[in-house]
Amino acid sequence: MTCSTSPDAARRLDGTLTVRSADGSPCADTDVLVRQVRHDVAFGNIGFDFVGLANGEQGGSRENVFGGADPEAAERLEHLWLDLFNTATLPFYWAGFEPVQGQPDTRRLQAAAAWFRDRGVSVKGHPLVWHTLAPDWLREHPDPEVEEIVRARVRREVTSFAGLVDTWDAINEVVIMPVFANEDRQNAITRLCRRTGRIPTVRLAFEEARAADPTTTLVLNDFNLSTAYECLIEGVLEAGVQVDAIGLQSHMHQGYWGEERTQEVLERFARYGLPLHWTETTLVSGDLMPPEIVDLNDHRVDEWPSTPEGEERQADEIVRHYRTLMSHPAVQAVTYWGITDRGAWLGAPAGLVRADGTPKPAYDALRGLVKGEWWLAPTRLRTDGEGRVPVRGWAGDYAVSAGDRSGSWTLRPDAPLPEVTLA
Amino acid sequence: MTCSTSPDAARRLDGTLTVRSADGSPCADTDVLVRQVRHDVAFGNIGFDFVGLANGEQGGSRENVFGGADPEAAERLEHLWLDLFNTATLPFYWAGFEPVQGQPDTRRLQAAAAWFRDRGVSVKGHPLVWHTLAPDWLREHPDPEVEEIVRARVRREVTSFAGLVDTWDAINEVVIMPVFANEDRQNAITRLCRRTGRIPTVRLAFEEARAADPTTTLVLNDFNLSTAYECLIEGVLEAGVQVDAIGLQSHMHQGYWGEERTQEVLERFARYGLPLHWTETTLVSGDLMPPEIVDLNDHRVDEWPSTPEGEERQADEIVRHYRTLMSHPAVQAVTYWGITDRGAWLGAPAGLVRADGTPKPAYDALRGLVKGEWWLAPTRLRTDGEGRVPVRGWAGDYAVSAGDRSGSWTLRPDAPLPEVTLA
Repeated sequence: MTCSTSPDAARRLDGTLTVRSADGSPCADTDVLVRQVRHDVAFGNIGFDFVGLANGEQGGSRENVFGGADPEAAERLEHLWLDLFNTATLPFYWAGFEPVQGQPDTRRLQAAAAWFRDRGVSVKGHPLVWHTLAPDWLREHPDPEVEEIVRARVRREVTSFAGLVDTWDAINEVVIMPVFANEDRQNAITRLCRRTGRIPTVRLAFEEARAADPTTTLVLNDFNLSTAYECLIEGVLEAGVQVDAIGLQSHMHQGYWGEERTQEVLERFARYGLPLHWTETTLVSGDLMPPEIVDLNDHRVDEWPSTPEGEERQADEIVRHYRTLMSHPAVQAVTYWGITDRGAWLGAPAGLVRADGTPKPAYDALRGLVKGEWWLAPTRLRTDGEGRVPVRGWAGDYAVSAGDRSGSWTLRPDAPLPEVTLA
Repeated sequence: MTCSTSPDAARRLDGTLTVRSADGSPCADTDVLVRQVRHDVAFGNIGFDFVGLANGEQGGSRENVFGGADPEAAERLEHLWLDLFNTATLPFYWAGFEPVQGQPDTRRLQAAAAWFRDRGVSVKGHPLVWHTLAPDWLREHPDPEVEEIVRARVRREVTSFAGLVDTWDAINEVVIMPVFANEDRQNAITRLCRRTGRIPTVRLAFEEARAADPTTTLVLNDFNLSTAYECLIEGVLEAGVQVDAIGLQSHMHQGYWGEERTQEVLERFARYGLPLHWTETTLVSGDLMPPEIVDLNDHRVDEWPSTPEGEERQADEIVRHYRTLMSHPAVQAVTYWGITDRGAWLGAPAGLVRADGTPKPAYDALRGLVKGEWWLAPTRLRTDGEGRVPVRGWAGDYAVSAGDRSGSWTLRPDAPLPEVTLA
């Protein structure tokens, strides 16, 4: 276990910015306004709620098993979402994405991805290969065809979304994949994984996705954070599969894990020297799900209200959780799973915004970190005789302006002496 | 899940033996006596109790953390042991085998192995690499030296015991290896495994052992039979490590698993197409260990007596367990963990013989299977006009005699038409 440190100690960079005029001369002894534009850390949330809005749909949004607000509600959520998050996870659940073989929902998802991109948001696709929500029609194909169809699906999605989606959950929940059973008839992905083995199935997903778009970031994602996932990761890496990030789900419907358990998970999975993506983080603002539930999907309740006490607890816990994650240098992305309680997965009050559209304390608390404590607000500084000004902030994109001239620059650990030319 | 079958349906072979005279002519129309000499299935037990006896030691046997009778008691156990088992597991726990670096207990263990070999018993060495019972002195060496010392230990033991030990647990309990902690200071094997990864550590053990004796059978052994072990096995196989058998521990101090769980384990691990060795099987004939104990070593009691009810239960369960294992064609070896309660591991009444030297019902029940129901007792048969006689039995070594002439032959699935020449 490492000693605990603070997010700032782990992440704040000290740099020196040199500001130049268009002719290359330093802007000496000049008042400048410096401000942060974007975090390098991916602070994400699901973008499921905005697919309908981005497509100009009316009325109830199309069915999505993992929830989502209707387009009208989404419109009122847009500002809250965009003011806090910089990365959107979009749903590529195969059964919903291609309910009839050969008729994928490509255009609609492309519009949603472009909607986010146009608003400065990076898009992540989730997931390319997964046993749950494999389409029924896939089951009718014999094994060798299943493998070819899965490969073609991976290639098609990654190719169709090149330039729109820059990160993919290449494969989801492989630990359980070959033994998964939630239906009378085994789904075809489980069948494939059982026949060929976990590692060949992982390789299939990563190799096809990589070949289709070598620039994309490919994540191995799981909810099983036990020793089994360690063994899987070690096998996958030893087999030479190039994994860009390890995805760790942390749905906490059954209660906040606490700092100690979270740090223990961080330490165990940071060992592989890969970036860690906390891909699915949930904290409820109401009753906790009973601890005896193993598969979260098995918990069905008629009503699961957000409560004032629950909302205070959620706000406290989200701050503690994000502080713990940001204190570890391996964490590159944290995706919260849900913006609103409206249509939320399992009906859980897991959103940061109430069903009526008002932000919960957790929203304000998280914003206070991401766009407050960890963010460089517009700051007036004066350059020295050589146009230099000291800057302190988290890795990311920044702007500087002097009068009506301005420029963009970036702060990175490997480039602490940025320069910018005002135009 | 496969349909359950019987051990006989899974294993009994129908063959035709041709008996010839020394001149090659068939022994036609002759009365012959056919009998089984040995099972191909390894019915094993630990041989820890006999190390002192084999070395002519007097008084209390030298310390062995996993128990063992003194030489005098062992002498009275010898017949019971040899009448039932054909494979002995000998202890190569490093801390005990080489308490002072450079002074291994080679000669004493060679004598023990030879003692068994001379009595027709195959010997298995346990284990070559394991974090528990790594020697304290190993911890003082820096990492690169530790790796070299471990490699040298594997080579040395396998080389020194070539011709005496034909099966090794090449590495033990790798699932927990990099995170194992039972001491203030991390043992050096855990340190090595944590630094290099599980699969490179497995590879190290298998490659060194294989190079030292290409004829030996190398087992990957674990008590963790969860999904984690599946993931480890898949990674090891995918990495190209040649594993000869998958070792499955089944210490049942906390109660018999039952047929269903045992079959489930068999199915999950038979999937890899490798022989399964049930390496450490225990059933107690007294109180069960409470279910909340996670590490069996944590359960310390002053007295743990064998009881009449416990002995009946143990006898019933050992029959059910061995029947379940023998019904699955992948099972190649079953080692029971303990012959006597005298000095047994954890003080548990896990032996098949009471501390006073009398056999428990479980001994008789197991013998009734291995040397009764599953064994071809001496049987008088008459050859036909071409010297042929039908034979039915489990794979193994057999003898045939006619008058004062006799011969040996083997029955194997791939050789159902054995021939024997009487001499």
